[in-house]
Amino acid sequence: MEESFDAEGSFDDASCLSSQSPGSTSPARRQTKEQEIKETKITINCVTFPVSTSTPEQQLLKPNEWSYCDYFWADKRDPQGATVPGFEVLLQKQLKGKHMQKEMAEFIRERIKIEEEYAKNLSKLSQSPLAAQEEGTLGDAWAQLKKSLTDEAEVHLKFSSKLQSEVEKPLLTFRGDNFKKDMKKYDHHISDLRKQLVSRYAAVEKARRALVDRQKDLEVKTQQLEIKLSNKTEEDIKKARRKSTQAGDDLMRCVDLYNQAQSKWFEEMVTSSLELERLEVERVEMIQQHLRQYTTLRHETDMFNQSTLEPVDQLLQSVDPGKDRELWVREHKTGELRPVDMDI
Amino acid sequence: MEESFDAEGSFDDASCLSSQSPGSTSPARRQTKEQEIKETKITINCVTFPVSTSTPEQQLLKPNEWSYCDYFWADKRDPQGATVPGFEVLLQKQLKGKHMQKEMAEFIRERIKIEEEYAKNLSKLSQSPLAAQEEGTLGDAWAQLKKSLTDEAEVHLKFSSKLQSEVEKPLLTFRGDNFKKDMKKYDHHISDLRKQLVSRYAAVEKARRALVDRQKDLEVKTQQLEIKLSNKTEEDIKKARRKSTQAGDDLMRCVDLYNQAQSKWFEEMVTSSLELERLEVERVEMIQQHLRQYTTLRHETDMFNQSTLEPVDQLLQSVDPGKDRELWVREHKTGELRPVDMDI
Repeated sequence: MEESFDAEGSFDDASCLSSQSPGSTSPARRQTKEQEIKETKITINCVTFPVSTSTPEQQLLKPNEWSYCDYFWADKRDPQGATVPGFEVLLQKQLKGKHMQKEMAEFIRERIKIEEEYAKNLSKLSQSPLAAQEEGTLGDAWAQLKKSLTDEAEVHLKFSSKLQSEVEKPLLTFRGDNFKKDMKKYDHHISDLRKQLVSRYAAVEKARRALVDRQKDLEVKTQQLEIKLSNKTEEDIKKARRKSTQAGDDLMRCVDLYNQAQSKWFEEMVTSSLELERLEVERVEMIQQHLRQYTTLRHETDMFNQSTLEPVDQLLQSVDPGKDRELWVREHKTGELRPVDMDI
Repeated sequence: MEESFDAEGSFDDASCLSSQSPGSTSPARRQTKEQEIKETKITINCVTFPVSTSTPEQQLLKPNEWSYCDYFWADKRDPQGATVPGFEVLLQKQLKGKHMQKEMAEFIRERIKIEEEYAKNLSKLSQSPLAAQEEGTLGDAWAQLKKSLTDEAEVHLKFSSKLQSEVEKPLLTFRGDNFKKDMKKYDHHISDLRKQLVSRYAAVEKARRALVDRQKDLEVKTQQLEIKLSNKTEEDIKKARRKSTQAGDDLMRCVDLYNQAQSKWFEEMVTSSLELERLEVERVEMIQQHLRQYTTLRHETDMFNQSTLEPVDQLLQSVDPGKDRELWVREHKTGELRPVDMDI
């Protein structure tokens, strides 16, 4: 505190500077006979900040970390003009993150559907009787080529199945429904502390006005005594002075209670925002892990897909027109005896 | 020829053995005073074969090759009972082979359609706005993951395009429409030679019957002379004998013409069946080559598909929750000044 409070003596009119915003007091500059007082603090929406030009630079609580606990003290205005506490911005980020998970899972679901369709089409074509009448080594190679489509279909079904269990499901179920409840708890807890701060601030303002009134009363009564304007006795002045002092004590107590409430809110803000920060790191890492799983499954799938060609390549290698001719001729020959000249 | 023909003297009744089939004569066994004649040849459908048990084994024209020219001399019966020349069987095989090509091309066409559908689905999903609001390094990785589906789609479209130009089209166009015309030419050519053989054979049979008649006439007239049954003179017998001899000459000439026609047919059979054999080898090798092209394209596709993941893997590697926090906090922070105690 830069302005001291003298319990017994004269006591400067504490100025409570604030910007033009609901629930704050208007700025005022007061100059006393003793010194020029510069306003060094400002209360905005019942939270008291240093005026940035006057104080030595505050050190960040967690320098170089861009930590949530360092950047969300003030309230902001949303496009509709409503006041949004910094902590609310952090909570919204968490809820949005949960929604992003869900949308990513939806995307994976769509991929799964595409894979299943592809597999179904390949499988169906694999059963086709087209060119089934081709025989011999060529017929075998062709049959295996057709069969390989079934193998490919299985690869893609396996892929889609693993996509579901290893990517989609985790993305959907990470944090579950409890998460929103947890966020609400944080929300309410911090809001309650802010509300307390608001009411303590109101008490301070009330005590401040009461003090001003008491001081005015004392001053009037003192002046009246001097010019013997009324029949006020010294007794009245003492009473006025006592009330003034009491009002001063009240103000001190209210300010003290206000500062306690603000400290409490401050502590909870630091703790909670760090927790949200941790949760966000966890979320990003979880998503990264599962998207890597997606690419791993894709790599695997392409490899398994390649291997469906091995038996086809082998059989194509073995295609032998001579062997096929032998097989066919053995089955379809009509006669080996060659014609001879007719005798007479 | 195992039975000799004596131009002037007695002349054995040439027997023309054949099986019970249209256009052939019935089997007969004749025994003369001089020797037992074993039937060593048989004419079936106007083609003359050795009787298999009597001749020394014929050597195959192309031993160990199962060549068409060795195995399709006889006609066969189809299930409806019609006679099908061996060469016809070979032609049918060629036409069937052309049909197999066509069916294989159809199969490839179906694969192309499946690939195009798959590519279309991937491409559409790639454009999805799901989780587009994710920002920072995680957002970049997610965006690349989505984009990779477009890359995959392109890989599959390229695959289907090459399937069309390098597999389907060659299979469809190999040999084209001229092939059927060429086969018809072979068909007609060989058929014409067979028809000629049939008519030459009919001439032989006619000449044979004429000879028998002449011989009978001579015999009767000779007998009549001996028993002085009629007033036939030596002159009549001489005439009869001359006619008999002429009939013998006619028969010889017919048999000779027949044998020439059979030789001509024989030569064409060998040449043409070897050509069909060559065409079949060419067909099998062409199909083998193009099916190998199919598997090559499949291998390529799986590899290109893998490479679509590289940028995704890289960006996932670079996901940095701290960096993302910095980016987000810079944009969304509400205020860095921390609250301080209110002064009185």
